Amino acid sequence: MTLRVAVAGASGYAGGEILRLLLHHPEVRIGSLTAAASAGQPLGNFQPHLPQLAQRTLEATTPEVLKGHDVVFLALPHGASAALSADLDDVPLVIDCGADFRLADAEAWARHYDGEHAGTWPYGLPELPGQRELLRTARRIALPGCFPTVVTLALAPLFRAGLARPAVDVVAVTGTSGAGRTLKPHLLGSEVMGSATAYGTAGTHRHTPELRQNLAALAGGPVEVSFTPVLAPMTRGILAVCGVQVRDHATAEDVRTAYAAHTADEPFVRLLPEGRWPTTAAVLGSNAMHLQTGFDEERRRLTAVGAIDNLTKGTAGNAVQCMNIVHRFPEDTGLTTTGVAP
Amino acid sequence: MTLRVAVAGASGYAGGEILRLLLHHPEVRIGSLTAAASAGQPLGNFQPHLPQLAQRTLEATTPEVLKGHDVVFLALPHGASAALSADLDDVPLVIDCGADFRLADAEAWARHYDGEHAGTWPYGLPELPGQRELLRTARRIALPGCFPTVVTLALAPLFRAGLARPAVDVVAVTGTSGAGRTLKPHLLGSEVMGSATAYGTAGTHRHTPELRQNLAALAGGPVEVSFTPVLAPMTRGILAVCGVQVRDHATAEDVRTAYAAHTADEPFVRLLPEGRWPTTAAVLGSNAMHLQTGFDEERRRLTAVGAIDNLTKGTAGNAVQCMNIVHRFPEDTGLTTTGVAP
Amino acid sequence: MTLRVAVAGASGYAGGEILRLLLHHPEVRIGSLTAAASAGQPLGNFQPHLPQLAQRTLEATTPEVLKGHDVVFLALPHGASAALSADLDDVPLVIDCGADFRLADAEAWARHYDGEHAGTWPYGLPELPGQRELLRTARRIALPGCFPTVVTLALAPLFRAGLARPAVDVVAVTGTSGAGRTLKPHLLGSEVMGSATAYGTAGTHRHTPELRQNLAALAGGPVEVSFTPVLAPMTRGILAVCGVQVRDHATAEDVRTAYAAHTADEPFVRLLPEGRWPTTAAVLGSNAMHLQTGFDEERRRLTAVGAIDNLTKGTAGNAVQCMNIVHRFPEDTGLTTTGVAP
Amino acid sequence: MTLRVAVAGASGYAGGEILRLLLHHPEVRIGSLTAAASAGQPLGNFQPHLPQLAQRTLEATTPEVLKGHDVVFLALPHGASAALSADLDDVPLVIDCGADFRLADAEAWARHYDGEHAGTWPYGLPELPGQRELLRTARRIALPGCFPTVVTLALAPLFRAGLARPAVDVVAVTGTSGAGRTLKPHLLGSEVMGSATAYGTAGTHRHTPELRQNLAALAGGPVEVSFTPVLAPMTRGILAVCGVQVRDHATAEDVRTAYAAHTADEPFVRLLPEGRWPTTAAVLGSNAMHLQTGFDEERRRLTAVGAIDNLTKGTAGNAVQCMNIVHRFPEDTGLTTTGVAP
Repeated sequence: MTLRVAVAGASGYAGGEILRLLLHHPEVRIGSLTAAASAGQPLGNFQPHLPQLAQRTLEATTPEVLKGHDVVFLALPHGASAALSADLDDVPLVIDCGADFRLADAEAWARHYDGEHAGTWPYGLPELPGQRELLRTARRIALPGCFPTVVTLALAPLFRAGLARPAVDVVAVTGTSGAGRTLKPHLLGSEVMGSATAYGTAGTHRHTPELRQNLAALAGGPVEVSFTPVLAPMTRGILAVCGVQVRDHATAEDVRTAYAAHTADEPFVRLLPEGRWPTTAAVLGSNAMHLQTGFDEERRRLTAVGAIDNLTKGTAGNAVQCMNIVHRFPEDTGLTTTGVAP
Repeated sequence: MTLRVAVAGASGYAGGEILRLLLHHPEVRIGSLTAAASAGQPLGNFQPHLPQLAQRTLEATTPEVLKGHDVVFLALPHGASAALSADLDDVPLVIDCGADFRLADAEAWARHYDGEHAGTWPYGLPELPGQRELLRTARRIALPGCFPTVVTLALAPLFRAGLARPAVDVVAVTGTSGAGRTLKPHLLGSEVMGSATAYGTAGTHRHTPELRQNLAALAGGPVEVSFTPVLAPMTRGILAVCGVQVRDHATAEDVRTAYAAHTADEPFVRLLPEGRWPTTAAVLGSNAMHLQTGFDEERRRLTAVGAIDNLTKGTAGNAVQCMNIVHRFPEDTGLTTTGVAP
Repeated sequence: MTLRVAVAGASGYAGGEILRLLLHHPEVRIGSLTAAASAGQPLGNFQPHLPQLAQRTLEATTPEVLKGHDVVFLALPHGASAALSADLDDVPLVIDCGADFRLADAEAWARHYDGEHAGTWPYGLPELPGQRELLRTARRIALPGCFPTVVTLALAPLFRAGLARPAVDVVAVTGTSGAGRTLKPHLLGSEVMGSATAYGTAGTHRHTPELRQNLAALAGGPVEVSFTPVLAPMTRGILAVCGVQVRDHATAEDVRTAYAAHTADEPFVRLLPEGRWPTTAAVLGSNAMHLQTGFDEERRRLTAVGAIDNLTKGTAGNAVQCMNIVHRFPEDTGLTTTGVAP
Repeated sequence: MTLRVAVAGASGYAGGEILRLLLHHPEVRIGSLTAAASAGQPLGNFQPHLPQLAQRTLEATTPEVLKGHDVVFLALPHGASAALSADLDDVPLVIDCGADFRLADAEAWARHYDGEHAGTWPYGLPELPGQRELLRTARRIALPGCFPTVVTLALAPLFRAGLARPAVDVVAVTGTSGAGRTLKPHLLGSEVMGSATAYGTAGTHRHTPELRQNLAALAGGPVEVSFTPVLAPMTRGILAVCGVQVRDHATAEDVRTAYAAHTADEPFVRLLPEGRWPTTAAVLGSNAMHLQTGFDEERRRLTAVGAIDNLTKGTAGNAVQCMNIVHRFPEDTGLTTTGVAP
């Protein structure tokens, strides 16, 4: 059986990446492609790298258009998914790339986003303990944000092994595509190239409560999170540098063992050999996450560094991975761990 | 039957791109990987984006290591292929990414490269008239240079239709990976980023005689070539801007018809809709070439603009395409026309 | 006497560059800074690199605000200068960075810009023969476009020596700042980085008639111009590759002599030693133009390659140079030929 | 009196930046320029952005060549300054850009660098308390490393006010020029562009003991330092993100007051208005440091973000600033706080 799949928000970067992956997915037929202001235009105006779909006309993002598909991916601005999904009851699987259904804490949601909290869907991060099994029967999936994905996976082994103190400091360097095709002055090429800048420190970034939620689940209790994203002159990629104190009893060997144990079976998480550090280039276009740690034993400080492609493992690849799990396809169907480098 | 394939020069950029593609080629098993100074090291030290092969040890580039494979790809410095291939008689198919066997004119070869001309192999550009058929029975293939590939394909339709005057002016903007992983000061990131520079004007670039050879074959007579490569701050991609005078009788309609006719059946050459111009980003990581033309009727000047990924259609993808042709696989096996963008 | 200088369009890139230079100009006091939609905001919101002016409030761009200054620089969208300057009669010196008053041919103007041709002002390219003297008494100056500046200066020596045939082919690689702080999708960092693209071939670019005008003046008759701009992933810089046929009688020595003779006395045009090619990085932030030529004697083809910073010699630096000429300051006052590299 | 100044290591990036600044310094005449392997070549082969010095021949880096100058700047590989400076007794002022004389702790030096500790010179960071006065009489100055410069200045106000707990977590994003013109594979443009990577975490980076030394002096006791540098695709600039816990009694107002008080009189340190974050582009080519803080009161976490140009305030500009102090020139002579942007 071939799945008929629709993509809402097909004119954006996340939507484009979903389509790029689906084009090489053997179990999928691409159905309706929708957009808001760009409806009526051919997809080729927005995604010149997808020639196979260049002639496809973007439809309006309405329940009528999306109904009748086996899977609907929502790659919409925050808030739009909640309104739309209420009318998608008949769609067997809806996977939301936005933030609407990620948080369990309605108050935290309201503080970081406009409007009312719409609810909580199963969280689409298969590498969390028990989550893969839970996702097998999900009909609605809320994908993690790109930053929480890489940070959670970079720290999960230490927390799962009970070796981490409950306070983490994260600086994550990101490319520009994470901000989408938004026409804002600070995203212009002239502003971005040759420059690095920080934004949203001191717990104000929208991904902070999500990160706190993930780490608390892993730690079995609250975890302090300091998170600073840095915009760097590249289109894709996140490099997350995550610092945490290691509990007093643990040795370097314990730490290494924990990381090896909790990544060994993961098809997309790769713990690099000692002495090699992740680069975002090595995972570009792939669903892989590269991971390395450095442990300063004297100061009991662990630095975990993770690299992902924000559009692939950070969004679209993870979305396809979740669909594969629900539909019992091999988890890497249509996905790769091979980066496009140099 | 699965082909057993070796890559000589696996630690370089071209070798790495061949491997990236072969990893997703269903008819291929990757055999020996060889290198010169880096022999003995794991491939992971050089190609961190290919985790599946990270543990593979690079062997020395010798006939003994390469013999016994069904296909050998040579991604070696100019001159090395000639010496090596003399001892590869038993290998059914050898595809050389270097310049050793590209030129028919021994004198031109000697003028642009050091040493003696080693001979001429069938030229691996399937899109040339009659070439695809010729390649089907080839046992040795000399791949085109990356610049001649995109320029020849950008101008071929006009020459094939007999509409071009025999003099072309080409400026081709290229990323840095075309120069390989060579430790030269002008290739350092600090020199390259934020800067554009020209080099090798006035007919001195090594690709000029090859381009002249190709265009002469298309035109049925000598063609003057002015060629200037420009190094731009990007890793991959060539954007070739090719100017040529159109013969007096031809209309804009004639030109457009010629381009449509001579690209319609090519799986990897895409003539863009009018009003859209090629970008190298749209073909990144793909074997596609995007093409557009502008015709200044008053001055009878045609500007053809082509974009390729220099490592894919410009080298490794084209190599796989040629292998597919020889082995009667569908020509796009293991290849894609989907770029990785943005 | 210190000049009181106003900048209209101070929130944009050209305006910002004028201010950066004026801050180090010993004969100038910075007066009113104006903007359109951004009026009322502090300049620091737009020009964070100019801390000395961060608290200055942008005023509205009106004749009332601009009157009373000794010099007014207009860095406005095309068309705005014409309307405004009609009411600036009392201002002793107005220098327009836009296109409104560049062209002598009203018809060409109307074809490439919207609206009616407003007239022709003295052309602010001091390096043209006789132009420096003419500018000394000018009260209104139309600055050249950034592309015509570098291309004209790259070809002027050959035309002045009577050695050039009247047809030129130009491909000019440019950074993104030339397009200004305009919110257009193709100028987003995500689109620009890692990519090269051509636009406006076949004589359609607005700078083509201006280039034709300049070269015709140098040649003493019409010159055919083919011009293709290429957008590259860098913020600043133009690298222009200019091809032209050399008249039959001329030798390589003649060409070299012509270039040496017609650049020797120019403070900002530097003919590089043989074997060295211009890079845009070497002129970044400076008012210098670097120039080199390659002559293919067999084919009689000269390739002249010029590099400038589009915001400095291409716009703001040239504007200050013109002001210096009018006011009899040393021509390099407040300007430098030192680039910021690497 | 005009100072006669020599630069040892004039072919490198730091040496080039010193020369760029000295060319515009009114009190200086540029004397001997020296190099190691490149001695005998013209400077123009290495510093094409400094046309005024292009014809200067590089001399060998020997005491004989350097003697007789009023000031000698050493921009040499670590270890070379110690050997050389022993024979420069007659030179009134020697300013070393390298690490040889930065550390007071001989053991820490030996652990991070090869060979024996050569001694400790006055530390060239004028913004430290009392340091400016101390430098006025110095004859030998050890310049800080680029990372310690920005991190120390970003945290100094909080430590000086006694508000910081003695443990800091720093992630600093840097451009490639900090690594010099070294021919290493990971510094090639093809590796750097489009990629971010971390290196040397867990206290192993050579700048960590220097940072610890600085913060201990400010805190009056030992300070734990976790430091991770990240290489980003840009030539210049460091953006340092510095996290620290604030002592319990302090309010947000206290923090802000401390930062305002301890930066107000510094000519090169600029505390940005609230709501604006530093970008490295805004300080490119300038001696300015831009600084902003975010305080998460609930978690008592301060994040201080500082931006400098690693070659200017991080090295060469700071060197000139120190020379100005010793020679009682206005501290900003030959320096600027104006960045080259965009």
